Parts: sequence; C-alpha cells; structure tokens
Amino acid sequence: MDKKEKQLRIGLAGLGNVGAGVYKNLEKNKSLLCERTGTELVVKKVAVRDLNRKRDVTVPSEKLTTDWKELINDPEIDIIVELIGGVDEAHELIVAALNANKAVVTGNKAVLAEKGKELIELSEKQNSPLYCEAAVAGGIPIIKAVKEALIGNRITSIFGIINGTSNYILTRMTSAGITFQEALEEATQKGFAEADPSLDINGWDAGHKAIILGWLSYGHWLRPEEVSVNGIEDISLDDVSFANDLGYEIKLLGVIRQAEGDERIEVRVSPTLIPKGHILSSVDGVFNAVAVHGDVVGETLFYGSGAGQDATSSAVISDLADAAENIHNDVGCTGFVPKGDFGTVLPLDETLSQYYLRLSVADRPGVLAQIADITGKNNVGILSVIQPEPASSSKHIPLVLLLHDASYGTVQNALSAILGLESVETKHTLLRVETLKS
Amino acid sequence: MDKKEKQLRIGLAGLGNVGAGVYKNLEKNKSLLCERTGTELVVKKVAVRDLNRKRDVTVPSEKLTTDWKELINDPEIDIIVELIGGVDEAHELIVAALNANKAVVTGNKAVLAEKGKELIELSEKQNSPLYCEAAVAGGIPIIKAVKEALIGNRITSIFGIINGTSNYILTRMTSAGITFQEALEEATQKGFAEADPSLDINGWDAGHKAIILGWLSYGHWLRPEEVSVNGIEDISLDDVSFANDLGYEIKLLGVIRQAEGDERIEVRVSPTLIPKGHILSSVDGVFNAVAVHGDVVGETLFYGSGAGQDATSSAVISDLADAAENIHNDVGCTGFVPKGDFGTVLPLDETLSQYYLRLSVADRPGVLAQIADITGKNNVGILSVIQPEPASSSKHIPLVLLLHDASYGTVQNALSAILGLESVETKHTLLRVETLKS
Repeated sequence: MDKKEKQLRIGLAGLGNVGAGVYKNLEKNKSLLCERTGTELVVKKVAVRDLNRKRDVTVPSEKLTTDWKELINDPEIDIIVELIGGVDEAHELIVAALNANKAVVTGNKAVLAEKGKELIELSEKQNSPLYCEAAVAGGIPIIKAVKEALIGNRITSIFGIINGTSNYILTRMTSAGITFQEALEEATQKGFAEADPSLDINGWDAGHKAIILGWLSYGHWLRPEEVSVNGIEDISLDDVSFANDLGYEIKLLGVIRQAEGDERIEVRVSPTLIPKGHILSSVDGVFNAVAVHGDVVGETLFYGSGAGQDATSSAVISDLADAAENIHNDVGCTGFVPKGDFGTVLPLDETLSQYYLRLSVADRPGVLAQIADITGKNNVGILSVIQPEPASSSKHIPLVLLLHDASYGTVQNALSAILGLESVETKHTLLRVETLKS
Repeated sequence: MDKKEKQLRIGLAGLGNVGAGVYKNLEKNKSLLCERTGTELVVKKVAVRDLNRKRDVTVPSEKLTTDWKELINDPEIDIIVELIGGVDEAHELIVAALNANKAVVTGNKAVLAEKGKELIELSEKQNSPLYCEAAVAGGIPIIKAVKEALIGNRITSIFGIINGTSNYILTRMTSAGITFQEALEEATQKGFAEADPSLDINGWDAGHKAIILGWLSYGHWLRPEEVSVNGIEDISLDDVSFANDLGYEIKLLGVIRQAEGDERIEVRVSPTLIPKGHILSSVDGVFNAVAVHGDVVGETLFYGSGAGQDATSSAVISDLADAAENIHNDVGCTGFVPKGDFGTVLPLDETLSQYYLRLSVADRPGVLAQIADITGKNNVGILSVIQPEPASSSKHIPLVLLLHDASYGTVQNALSAILGLESVETKHTLLRVETLKS
C-alpha cells in the first residue's frame, strides 16, 4: 500500500507526560503503524500552555500553538487528542471538537466521570466517535475488552486494581514494612506519585475509572456524588500485618457489579482485603489489573502498566488506529455501547461483603463474648478472630475479627453497638474483604 | 432501536462442545446482544455430522442439516461459523464460504496454522473477513489484544500458557505430587482432556496457537514443520521438585519473539521453568495466560479460561459482533494485519535461554569439576547447582545444573561432551528456563 495514499491529521491538545509519550511513540513506530493500519498518522498541530517549557520531546515550533481552538478550527485535522487533563477546559475542548465533527481520543477519566453522559450524547448526535482507552488502567486495553471482546457476556463483576500510586504504596507497606507516609515519600521520589497525589490517595482517580467501567458494563452513567469512594490514607502497618496473618493482602479495589435482575449498579472503591491465592493479589507495585467476570466467559484478568508516559500512549495510539480505520471506512460512532443515561446506584447500606474489623478492647475476660453476642443478634457471623498476646503494660489490646458476608448497613449497626460497649474503645478499623469468587 | 430492523443470519457448522456453547449462549444473551450491537444475531442453519446424536442443546430439527454446503449456498446466510475442527474439511468449508463472499468466524487453530497464509490471502482477495478470536486461548481476547489494542507496539516477546490440559497436568504434578500419568487420568475424568489428548500432551495444540500469535505479531506465517514443539510427556516428578527447590515452576510455554532488526522469528513451544515470583507462575489448572511485551506498553498479561464450551463461545460471539458491525457498515476486511507471507524461523540452534540440566552422575568426587570444565570451555556459565544427598545404595546420583543464557546449539555441544564422560549416564533432562524479562 502506498504510504502516502492515506494520511490522517491529528491535533494533539496537551504535551505533558502522556502527550509527549504519544508524540514520541507515534514517531518511533511510524513505519510499523503505517504498515499495519495502511494510514500515515501525522501530528499536525500541538496545543500547549507554555511555548517555552522544556520538554522531553522535540516538536517543531511551527506545530506548536497555545490556543487549542486552532486545532478545532483547522479543517485538515481529522482527530483531536485531548490530554490536557482536568474537567472544565477539557470538557469545553471535547464539546468543540465533536461539534466540529472531529473524532476525539481522550485519556481523561475525570471529564468522563463528571460529564460522560453529556459527551457521549453529543458524540452520538454528531456521529463523531469519542475514544477513551487511555482513561482507564493505562496500557491495559480494558475498554476494548469490556466494550468489544466480552460483548457476549452479562458482566457479573469487575474487580480492579486501577490506581498505580496506591498499589505501589500498599505493596511497599506489605513487602518492606514501611509506613504509609514513608511509602508515599518513596513513591514521590521515584516519580510514581504526582506532586499533588490527593486524587490517587483519596481513591478518586480509581473512582472515576470505576464509573467508566460501570458505564461500559451496564450502559448507565453513575453520578460521582452517589458513588462510595475511600482511599488508603488510614491504612496502618498493623492492618497490613493482621491481614497477612489472616491470609490476605490489602489492595485499593474498585468494585463494579450488578446482581442479575437488579437494575441497581454497585460501583465503589475502597481498600480491601483480598485472598493471597488469587491472581489479583500478585499484582504489585505500580502495575494495574482488572478481573472481569462474565456469565459466559467466566473469570478473566487483564494486567499491565496502569500509568506512565509510554504505557498510556500505547492506549492512545490504539484509539488513533481505530479512529483511522473508521474514518477511512466512513463509519462514525460504532454501536457497541447502550445509550447512556443515569443509572441507580445500589445504596451503600445494601452492598454485601465480608469485613475485617480491628478493635481496641480492654484486656480482660468476656469481651469477645460480649462482641459475639452483638454480632450474633445482628446475624453477622464471625469467620475468625485474632487476639494477639498483650504487651504487658497495655490496658487495651487489639482484637481482629473477620466477619461473614453481610450488608454494610447491618455491619454498621452491629459496629455501633460494639463501640458502645464500655470495654471497647471507639478507635477502630473496618475494611471490606472480597473473596473475588465472581 | 427496532430489534427487527437489523438481522444477521448465521450458518453454524459443527455442534460439538463449542458449537453447542455458541448456540446456547447466543440464545441466553439474545436481548443483551441485540441491545449492544443493534443487530439480532440469528442462527439460521446448523450443519452436524449426525442428526440423531444426543446433544446438550436443543436445536429445532428444521434448522439441522448434515451438509454444510447448504449453509454456503443459502444466500440469506451472512456469516459462517466454522467449528467442525480438523484441517482438510474445515479448509474446504472456509474456502467455499469466502468464495461465496460470506464472513467467516473460526475457532480452528489447526487449519489456520496449516493453511493460514492461503486462507488470509483468499479472505483479502474476496474482501470477506476471517475472524479467529476463539482459535487462541479460548475466552481470552488475545487476538484482539495483539491485533488491535497493542497495534502501536513492536511486539518484543510473547510468553503464553496456551494449553489448558497441559497446565492442569503440570499444576497437579506440582501441587499434589502425582505423576504425569495420574494427572492425565484425572484430567480425562474431569473432562479437561479429550479422549485423544495427544495434541495437548505433545505440545502441538499450543504450537498451532503460537504460529497464529507469531503471524499477528510479525505479519508472517511460519511453516509448522519449521517450528520446534515439545510436549510435557517426559516431565517427571523429580524435575518438578528440583525446579521448585530452585525457585521455579514448570509450565508448557509458547514463546514468540523477534529481536529488533532481525527478520527471523522465534516461535517455539516447550516445557519451561519460569520464576515463581512472575505472575505467569500463578496461572494454575486449566487457565491460560498470555504475557505480551511491547516496546511502548511494556509488560501486559491476559488471563482466563483457555478452553471449554462457554469461554470459547464468548470469543466466537465477540467475532460475530465485530462481523455484524462491519457488515452493517458495509466494511470488508479491516486492515490491521500486514499481508501474510512465509517468514523465516530463527534456527533452533540460535535460540537463547537459560537451561535446567538434570544428569545422573557417578557418586564420587571430581565429577562436577569435569562438567564445569566442559561448560566453561563452551562459554556456558553455571548459575547454580543442586546435588542432593545420595541414597546410600545408589552408585549414581542426580546432579542438577542451572545454566546461564546460551544458544541451544552451544548447550547441545556442551551436553554431548558431558554425556561422553565416563562418570555421567546418558539419561538426562534438559529443559529451558525463561526469566520472562522481556
């Protein structure tokens, strides 16, 4: 095929970490991509905030602009790649691009989680596709997997380790026995955490991704304010160690699930104990993995680098190849996702899981009996108990309980009664335990 | 969307295990599929060998025929699904379907490995696509991953556990300490091995899959007779145990690799020691996993059920959905795979890896020195040695060596010299060790 025969012109908005990776890797594998797609993918213009900033790629200065509207207004540009991040300006940019009938590729999970319903509606109205493989789990092609490869399945559950920074921190706490704060500092030093890591640490980076996976799985958007998200800030080395004794690892886990016949969708993120035997528990460091259970395929898992310049640009480039193919075949939006609307979130109180509960109790006989009496009355079974030898001087000792499957509401009721006991201190840790069975 | 608006008619050739799964699951998730694809996928005719055979799905008798040519000759049928297995008749069927300008979905790895070049050429000439997600690793969407999702990458290596029967047997030998023969019998009883498991055991089922992955990765077909394939028949419990002592698990591993700048392709299958820390080593039982390393994305891994009625039908159904979309968009072959021709296989003698060598040597001093002298002269480094305590009565004792990276040819030279030593018996085991670094 004549390499000059087909050419596709890209407007790249954003030349930060991932944007630079896209530019660099499109250059690097130019001939390979041209051979495989039959199309030359050319970055025609690049919009940046600061023309003079030093970057790790060299872009000819005539391609650079500080005004992304130039990309939209250029009739020769077929595809806009949005990598500026954030919500408001990215939203404005994507809307403008779709209105100009350009295909859009984005890696922006926040704008999709906040404005996905509106953006997909506009994309469908304009018949201009919006691609987002890079928005979830970096280089792992989880969007394509759920949207296309598993299309014959009712998705029964998705469990995802979808934040590399958190996973790095938890891995280091587990393997090196360092504290959350020490592990966070190490992650920052190694470039695995951003200058402001709050969205990683507080769980919301994973929360945005979970909302996108919920949309792909069940066709409905969920409002972020209705989704329960907890981060890893409060995980202590004691919890890591007790979890280990019980045969578990603590991971920041995104859960996406819908019971058969129930319209309500469970989408939530929290630090969670998962069994050591499960393949997800061997996902360490900055790696991500997403376990998808389908009613036909059974258990699948997708693993890889969840972030980083190169891995994420691999996802952007695959979207560009899909876009190129569709543009040359004169195909607009492809019909693999049900129409978006807002779905109903399964109320947190009704979500089911096992639980890990660490209490601080008076060091005297009968306390466990009092607690077991309360859990029993609330129909919450106790799976196991760890009561470490007390340090000689302490009046209070830790008591760790592993609780059977129960709704969050029930467990909260039992917990308030337990914390009301005179022999139990109010300070405690309650974490979910997922058996990952389906 | 009006469900009756779009309809696609399927001719299903073969109603064995996977064929029955496709029929069953298309029925089961009919409305979901219709909603997601905007198309009703209807099985119009089913070709079977024996009309009266008892099956685990009920197909209306008017849909059944014993002549697959009826499917080809039916102008209303848009897509042929080939699940009859074997090479010659399947080849004839696929050729006839492509010549009739029907899209073809196949799960037949043997026919692709043997006749892939010709079939893809015909598919391109007719502009009738040939889909084969179900041919490799069952429910794992590895075809789509390599062909589409990782399109921006030069594939640096693929390591695959791509035969469920072998993996079940090796897992049981490792975890339960039972022999190859006992584990094979167990696999047969549990339905994890076919009545004739020879293609699983001798490695050729994996070999066919590796050839397909090599084609997707590098664009060239390889002739099966030029590909080195070894099965697991000769793996002993001693090897499993020594491997364990050294920190490895034995897996039947497909390796697909091409060095940068080298046209020659390495595609081979053999029982291989892999390090216990690597995520591939936790792939147990009938599960499959494929680790794909790309120059942009880094390490990725795809995990799931590699066989079975349901998992494999999930892959067939995703191909049907892709076919439906392309037919409705009036798109023929999509251009994501370079033109097929026969590539050059990297000669076995030049393939590099580490090695596990188990010898039986005379129980007297100086033998290790003699062996080390030979490996040294051949520039093969020794990474570690295990010499178990001898049983009191035996004249010969095992000696296990872990050898540094070396070409197969070099190791064979060293090995013949070692086996020529008076103190070394000719009976030995040589297995590859892959560090899985890239």
